[in-house]
Amino acid sequence: MIRIAVDAMGGDFGPSVTVRACLAFLDSHPEAGVVLVGQPDVLATQAQFPRIQSHPRCQVLAATEVVTMDDPIEVALRRKKDSSMRVAITQVKNGSAQAAVSAGNTGALMAIARYVLKTLEGIDRPAIATQLPNAAGGATTVLDLGANIDCTEDHLFQFAVMGSALVSAIADKPSPTVGLLNIGEEAIKGSEIIKKAGELLRSAAKSGDLNFHGNVEGNDIFKGVVDIVVCDGFVGNVALKASEGLASMIGGFIKAEFSRNIFTKAAAIVAYPVLSAFKNRVDHRRYNGAALLGLRGLVFKSHGSADAFAFERALNRAYDAARNNLLERVQERIAHAAPLLAKAALGPAGATGAEVPVVQADPMPAH
Amino acid sequence: MIRIAVDAMGGDFGPSVTVRACLAFLDSHPEAGVVLVGQPDVLATQAQFPRIQSHPRCQVLAATEVVTMDDPIEVALRRKKDSSMRVAITQVKNGSAQAAVSAGNTGALMAIARYVLKTLEGIDRPAIATQLPNAAGGATTVLDLGANIDCTEDHLFQFAVMGSALVSAIADKPSPTVGLLNIGEEAIKGSEIIKKAGELLRSAAKSGDLNFHGNVEGNDIFKGVVDIVVCDGFVGNVALKASEGLASMIGGFIKAEFSRNIFTKAAAIVAYPVLSAFKNRVDHRRYNGAALLGLRGLVFKSHGSADAFAFERALNRAYDAARNNLLERVQERIAHAAPLLAKAALGPAGATGAEVPVVQADPMPAH
Repeated sequence: MIRIAVDAMGGDFGPSVTVRACLAFLDSHPEAGVVLVGQPDVLATQAQFPRIQSHPRCQVLAATEVVTMDDPIEVALRRKKDSSMRVAITQVKNGSAQAAVSAGNTGALMAIARYVLKTLEGIDRPAIATQLPNAAGGATTVLDLGANIDCTEDHLFQFAVMGSALVSAIADKPSPTVGLLNIGEEAIKGSEIIKKAGELLRSAAKSGDLNFHGNVEGNDIFKGVVDIVVCDGFVGNVALKASEGLASMIGGFIKAEFSRNIFTKAAAIVAYPVLSAFKNRVDHRRYNGAALLGLRGLVFKSHGSADAFAFERALNRAYDAARNNLLERVQERIAHAAPLLAKAALGPAGATGAEVPVVQADPMPAH
Repeated sequence: MIRIAVDAMGGDFGPSVTVRACLAFLDSHPEAGVVLVGQPDVLATQAQFPRIQSHPRCQVLAATEVVTMDDPIEVALRRKKDSSMRVAITQVKNGSAQAAVSAGNTGALMAIARYVLKTLEGIDRPAIATQLPNAAGGATTVLDLGANIDCTEDHLFQFAVMGSALVSAIADKPSPTVGLLNIGEEAIKGSEIIKKAGELLRSAAKSGDLNFHGNVEGNDIFKGVVDIVVCDGFVGNVALKASEGLASMIGGFIKAEFSRNIFTKAAAIVAYPVLSAFKNRVDHRRYNGAALLGLRGLVFKSHGSADAFAFERALNRAYDAARNNLLERVQERIAHAAPLLAKAALGPAGATGAEVPVVQADPMPAH
């Protein structure tokens, strides 16, 4: 049985969201189990707690501490050693669970996951990957979203490999297409690092390690030109947040125009079914659950403000990743592409292997 | 009289758009003049050409060549020396016009403008600045949008100074606020370059050279937290294009939902006035006219796909910039802030003054 370890205390709403989401998840996944980690006294205040506590496929595990949204990474990592977040990740480490999900502080989650699980062989830096809806009716997976601000071509290449493994596992696409985010489609565009990453990706495409589409531009993320868009964490974070800002502005404008006067309010009633169909189509909750890739264990990050519906989506995603052996897929692909990286490393601009800070930016404060 | 030199041939629609826009501009600006530059035989095919040709405040100037959208920079710069684009910019150089406007190839425009006009003293690299609508009901000016992909802290600082001058001239805000685009609001976030740029900007704020707000994140562009957002051209280009992609996806979804069946089509009719008010609110045509800043002359870039309404907006913007002495404002501000930059240059990471390619990315192919 695949078990998901859940940090019940994380996120803006803690157990009031996580417990309900876990129950719904267990209902819809008769083969799955949950390890629910939290402070017993807080969990006990939840109306639905007795139901989950007595659930045959749920194990409740006590943790005495909670990582808060503004805990510095050092505090989360060094001082709160019995946090619900850490205990959940430890379940993955010791094999009691196949994936961990938390809606808590992203920086702390990445730091603890990296410390407890370590990175996979061949991966210099873990990355954060999320899905965004696209005009083609599917989703585009974008990485990195803020774990790494300065990336070499090797890092970008590893992101491409990990992203391909993720999409092949979760979206059931055996050979998803990869685009390198750039400021023009031509191979001569961009910084030296981008150009070298492009060369690596083209070599990998030739040897069948990747399905490399070529350079893509910012608008292609939402056009759905490729399955995976690869970029450094600074660019990815800015692009994601700019998009969130724009979506929220547009939503605000639509609302404002429909509430202007009695006539527009009447129009809103008539248009309601259409507007809610539209809203459903761009509902970011459906895409909740960012993957922390490159670790020796599966960890998924839910938005802090997720409701039970959104949190359940993150649980589903973690379950699909575990069920489809995401970890093995990443490992296999990285091992297969290793000769390419080794060859590139002989050049002057190979990976330095230097240790870097764990997480630079929280990709998801805005929803 | 302030005269605007217009590249009549530029853009997807050439004179069919530019001639009409110039007539409307002359009508609404009784103090302004236009120097219309184009191929006489093509201009003569326009129904409205006789009207503008006989207009007392319009001078028609012949150019034998046209820079096309896919002309390489070298061709535009070295081979087409009598292009409408170049002749228009030359009018600014020789004082016959106070600003030039073109809807042509951005890379060629920046290259020719830089070659003909040269950069201002104290400016290492010209930048491209545009305005985006924000939820606060105003506009956020963002730069750079693709002229420079690798920027030092000095470049970012110069962008802040130039952006402040632009907004003070065009939006009549004497002390507009500046935000440094980053992946977190705290001063400790971001790359070394971003941190150093933040230090420079804080010093400038102390000495009264700038109204520095601090770091901003991607979503703040559309929230309208600050008047000006400063970033390198790679990040700015990706953020702008990602936003364009998202806006276009949302527009497509709204359209699709309203045309689903006879009921939703009826709802669309009822909601039409509201939807068009909304559309007007996010109409990118209103924000047409990106400024090429840092040159010894005013040059504005219109979207290639601009219609007459949008092109006229770019003309208005160029006119306002000339009327409010944008060039002098930039020069004054740069001169005033020079001691700060000189001080910073004594440090190990001062500007190298190295020559860089003229334009890296066209910021505006998507509309």
